[in-house]
Amino acid sequence: MSGNSIGVLFRVTTWGESHGKAVGVVVDGCPPRIALTESDIQEELKRRKPGQIPSASPRKEEDLVEILSGTFEGRTTGTPISLIIKNRDVDSAAYEELRDIFRPGQGDFTYYKKYGIRDHRGGGRASARETAGRVAAGAIAKKVIASEGIEVIAYTKELGGIAAERISLSEIHQNNLRCPDLKTARAMAEKLEEAKKNGDSLGGIVEILVKGCPPGLGEPVFDKIDADLAKALMSIGAVKGLEIGAGFQAARMTGAECNDPIMPGGFSTNHAGGILAGITNGEEILIRVACKPIPSIGRAQKTIDIHGKPREVSIKGRHDVSAIPRIISVCEAMVSMVLADHLLRQRAKAVNDPGP
Amino acid sequence: MSGNSIGVLFRVTTWGESHGKAVGVVVDGCPPRIALTESDIQEELKRRKPGQIPSASPRKEEDLVEILSGTFEGRTTGTPISLIIKNRDVDSAAYEELRDIFRPGQGDFTYYKKYGIRDHRGGGRASARETAGRVAAGAIAKKVIASEGIEVIAYTKELGGIAAERISLSEIHQNNLRCPDLKTARAMAEKLEEAKKNGDSLGGIVEILVKGCPPGLGEPVFDKIDADLAKALMSIGAVKGLEIGAGFQAARMTGAECNDPIMPGGFSTNHAGGILAGITNGEEILIRVACKPIPSIGRAQKTIDIHGKPREVSIKGRHDVSAIPRIISVCEAMVSMVLADHLLRQRAKAVNDPGP
Amino acid sequence: MSGNSIGVLFRVTTWGESHGKAVGVVVDGCPPRIALTESDIQEELKRRKPGQIPSASPRKEEDLVEILSGTFEGRTTGTPISLIIKNRDVDSAAYEELRDIFRPGQGDFTYYKKYGIRDHRGGGRASARETAGRVAAGAIAKKVIASEGIEVIAYTKELGGIAAERISLSEIHQNNLRCPDLKTARAMAEKLEEAKKNGDSLGGIVEILVKGCPPGLGEPVFDKIDADLAKALMSIGAVKGLEIGAGFQAARMTGAECNDPIMPGGFSTNHAGGILAGITNGEEILIRVACKPIPSIGRAQKTIDIHGKPREVSIKGRHDVSAIPRIISVCEAMVSMVLADHLLRQRAKAVNDPGP
Amino acid sequence: MSGNSIGVLFRVTTWGESHGKAVGVVVDGCPPRIALTESDIQEELKRRKPGQIPSASPRKEEDLVEILSGTFEGRTTGTPISLIIKNRDVDSAAYEELRDIFRPGQGDFTYYKKYGIRDHRGGGRASARETAGRVAAGAIAKKVIASEGIEVIAYTKELGGIAAERISLSEIHQNNLRCPDLKTARAMAEKLEEAKKNGDSLGGIVEILVKGCPPGLGEPVFDKIDADLAKALMSIGAVKGLEIGAGFQAARMTGAECNDPIMPGGFSTNHAGGILAGITNGEEILIRVACKPIPSIGRAQKTIDIHGKPREVSIKGRHDVSAIPRIISVCEAMVSMVLADHLLRQRAKAVNDPGP
Repeated sequence: MSGNSIGVLFRVTTWGESHGKAVGVVVDGCPPRIALTESDIQEELKRRKPGQIPSASPRKEEDLVEILSGTFEGRTTGTPISLIIKNRDVDSAAYEELRDIFRPGQGDFTYYKKYGIRDHRGGGRASARETAGRVAAGAIAKKVIASEGIEVIAYTKELGGIAAERISLSEIHQNNLRCPDLKTARAMAEKLEEAKKNGDSLGGIVEILVKGCPPGLGEPVFDKIDADLAKALMSIGAVKGLEIGAGFQAARMTGAECNDPIMPGGFSTNHAGGILAGITNGEEILIRVACKPIPSIGRAQKTIDIHGKPREVSIKGRHDVSAIPRIISVCEAMVSMVLADHLLRQRAKAVNDPGP
Repeated sequence: MSGNSIGVLFRVTTWGESHGKAVGVVVDGCPPRIALTESDIQEELKRRKPGQIPSASPRKEEDLVEILSGTFEGRTTGTPISLIIKNRDVDSAAYEELRDIFRPGQGDFTYYKKYGIRDHRGGGRASARETAGRVAAGAIAKKVIASEGIEVIAYTKELGGIAAERISLSEIHQNNLRCPDLKTARAMAEKLEEAKKNGDSLGGIVEILVKGCPPGLGEPVFDKIDADLAKALMSIGAVKGLEIGAGFQAARMTGAECNDPIMPGGFSTNHAGGILAGITNGEEILIRVACKPIPSIGRAQKTIDIHGKPREVSIKGRHDVSAIPRIISVCEAMVSMVLADHLLRQRAKAVNDPGP
Repeated sequence: MSGNSIGVLFRVTTWGESHGKAVGVVVDGCPPRIALTESDIQEELKRRKPGQIPSASPRKEEDLVEILSGTFEGRTTGTPISLIIKNRDVDSAAYEELRDIFRPGQGDFTYYKKYGIRDHRGGGRASARETAGRVAAGAIAKKVIASEGIEVIAYTKELGGIAAERISLSEIHQNNLRCPDLKTARAMAEKLEEAKKNGDSLGGIVEILVKGCPPGLGEPVFDKIDADLAKALMSIGAVKGLEIGAGFQAARMTGAECNDPIMPGGFSTNHAGGILAGITNGEEILIRVACKPIPSIGRAQKTIDIHGKPREVSIKGRHDVSAIPRIISVCEAMVSMVLADHLLRQRAKAVNDPGP
Repeated sequence: MSGNSIGVLFRVTTWGESHGKAVGVVVDGCPPRIALTESDIQEELKRRKPGQIPSASPRKEEDLVEILSGTFEGRTTGTPISLIIKNRDVDSAAYEELRDIFRPGQGDFTYYKKYGIRDHRGGGRASARETAGRVAAGAIAKKVIASEGIEVIAYTKELGGIAAERISLSEIHQNNLRCPDLKTARAMAEKLEEAKKNGDSLGGIVEILVKGCPPGLGEPVFDKIDADLAKALMSIGAVKGLEIGAGFQAARMTGAECNDPIMPGGFSTNHAGGILAGITNGEEILIRVACKPIPSIGRAQKTIDIHGKPREVSIKGRHDVSAIPRIISVCEAMVSMVLADHLLRQRAKAVNDPGP
């Protein structure tokens, strides 16, 4: 309960700083006898890898994951699964001049205020590098939920103010931006290039779709599945907003418009986004998260140092221009973890009498 | 960890159904020696009370709270504070015809799928009545955070698509809709009347402002304060979306626009909404939540019964036309709980060496 | 996590002080559709009731339990079950002279040091009265584990230094002391009378036997079932020691003597007390707990007051002479809760592939 | 909450199997700015190292600990501290013949029943090797509590039925058995040699003394400090019993004998073992734990294999003859963790009004 763990039964604990020796994660509570190898996890890490789009960070994170415990002869044993990803390409010298400076939009200021000490190198613990552990754990969560036929798909809904005009799932992996609309993807790419030239960065919106989720997941009244999803997604550094189903549009609907009529074959609309009263209803879960632009930009910015003196800072080196598309893998991982956790929690309720 | 508790050190557990004997809450972890009487709590419950606006539910919930434990001679003792609010005006007969029917937009369907049994009377556990316990606990949380000078203020930002044009905190309590703009409040009231006549309901947006919050609250990387706030607010039945600071607008900004420059006297803008990397930065915390329209409407709606047969339902009796303004008290309560919890968590980190 | 809750999935939270308005408990996580009425719980409370043995406290606690939530038409609904037991026979005036005095052997001194305030009436929160909530929750836990054929039986193994010479389960309920040896029970009763005459009190040993427990319960390495049982039992005020299976005798055995050989039909001995490596092995679980004598005695004792001045105190009024036999019900309740919790936790591990 | 973590605010998660790649631990919640280097931890691991006494296991575990995260320039940062200890001397071939056999007294049988799969090599997760992670985390906990002047000292009270006749703390580190009585230590060593010759093993009793603990630690009614200590110690594989203060002897005392009179300068006796009503009272905490003999013995033992067929097994290779003295470091670690956790929890209660 000290902040670096999430989940009740499928419990994920990440550790590690951007420029420390490694980052990693411990997954406790994964059911036994699930086939799991390093390549299962590597596959997911590959998608998160920077450097995939022209404008992305060229840092060569190889992100090779190693399973240190919890499996035996290719299957999980029910004991904690420890995963480690060594930090290889860590040039801390570049950060020396930032030692005493708080970069705007980053955790520098708040970490220092909170802990009275901070590892200034690459954002330390607050670095997006921490999410490698999340994606690795997410790969395991995906295997757990896949056993029930649940699949999580995330994609770029909007980037730099340009929104996908249609959702064609097959096109997501046909472009580096993971946009479900190839035509829009090109416009987004141009916008990214432009921002890069300006020493600036862009924000965007990720949409997450969950298919095959059975009804019944979620533990009212506080561990509602939407509440836990909101927490998991909002715990990603760049996320500043989140909506489920009709989301903010629901606030402008009337009840007659918003309520999803129930038919013998299912719900006729899905404004609820697959969740009613905090419990899945068997429809697709639909979530959108708003990602702020990457705060590390080349342009000069006003700030202060740890002594409170005014300073100016412009971030050298090369950084991603947008959290998208890397953050998409992180969103998928977080949603998968929440679903895995709630799947196990719901199983615990099984009784002899099967009920309806 | 069974869903009906929230918080780590300031731990709140609610219980009770709409038409059971009572609803209540246990607050565990409240610091000792805080002055607390029933009237402190009653004051908050009064604000949550239905029947305040013309179109609101006429159910006469007196909502008299009783402190059953945890105080001695008017002060908290550090032991669990048990609060009970008896259900007085419970006419279950009206619900008899809904025994086998799933009302659209409600938890009827999902509770039945999850538990195989449900208390159909008034929504049972999924009723908004459960939030009386939250508001009562929130009254205690408010006292805890007030001791550090923290104040939580929520108000109606938008109702039925009509948005407040300005935010004048002094006007919030000058109108029943708790709108910070009296002129807009009148337009909202008309819109509510219209919806009522149509047997329909409205959604809206609540904005929550936290003043006086010190920097340093929040426990990265999963129990970030924005993550915990998101969970707490999304656990309220009507909430379908949430944003912090610039929120969804941040997704359309560039880094240069979105980053808040830091000056010796503080941040010069507050797009971050008072939170950086999951930790408060000393600025005002600003949150908006989207509330869907109340699903109980007089109009006929299509649905099914527990046997899967198509049915039509129109909700008789009288219900609120909008979760707003009642939900405002609930939002304030949830935010106060999260802040109280994180305040205690941060205190635990105190060490002999005071640091910066 | 604030101290007044126990269990992960079957989560029990007690509240209330000896001389407050009521004591109670919230049980969160009880599976749905289990038959449960107030009389199920009342039955267990009756066994805990003081005043059953000649020397016991004559306080007329009627201990009428009321179910406030969580059931519908006689069955659990999966929502939190709130139970309340009003305090009726509360004469606080007798405690007035103890307001500033720390009674030896009680929580008076430590509660005051910890919280800086204490409810001095009848021990406040530290009173054995709190265990009424535990016994009530235990009644529900018993129903959960009974569905798997698990039964918990506790009895007086030793009282005032007099040990039962044999264990005849059928005799347990043939005597007020719940001793499984009627002959010894008589000697124990005489010893109690003698202590009473001397204004003194006695300690004893309770043995707890769990029959029908399937193999597989317990979550290594920290939530081993013996670890959780130890915590649950040690959380009872009077308990100062605990052993499982051969217990302290195991420390004097050799490996060849202590190891339980495994036969095709089961274990040939049970020095392990039904638990290996923190997981149940299918044999009977056997636990013994050492209970200290009741600290409230008529004899004069040396102590100090809250100002640190030496005082003398002799407890007036009438108190139990021994925690036994009342504590037996509490032991059964705690063990039942731990088993119910671990039963649910183990169910969550179920996978499609049934395994061995 | 999946079994491999302990503590609320000082949260320790161990991972790793005996013959996997490594064992390790993540410590989440350690306060920031505490000086911490690998040698601090190595020092504690050295004491736990096997091979120190003639009869101990000759396995050359070098147990070199590496800090992977959570410190910066020699001080803790408040972020999770990840520690890894690689497994070097792992000859799994010797275990091949045990692949299908359940060794008596070990977790083989129960792990298989619980998970349907087990890593048979060296006991897998149930191996004492897991405690290396505990001792490493304990080294950090010791630093946290040392800042408040708290010291934990454990020693061999009894071995193979031979009890120390006196407690001379200075003699503990003058003998390999960590016995506080050099004369008895020699008799114990002879007894160990004898058991070794017989292909047998011995149990014993460890006593743990906590000096300098302030009053006020412990969170009634379930997270009493004695309850949490009992859980933490009982979670050590070999422990089958535990007592605090007078412990089982308290069960044979009268109230007048057992109660510790309170004097202006402190308690005049300490039958309570430093804990009253689950809260420390400022006196020394005194705990004894009973350790069963090591189950791995050279002698032939009856057992079954995974198919239920009778088998005979005699453990080849060389193993410790007693968990003592290695377990002493583990006991110190567990007690230190519990104290660190409760120290932080108590700090959270601090309020502006200092109280008494």
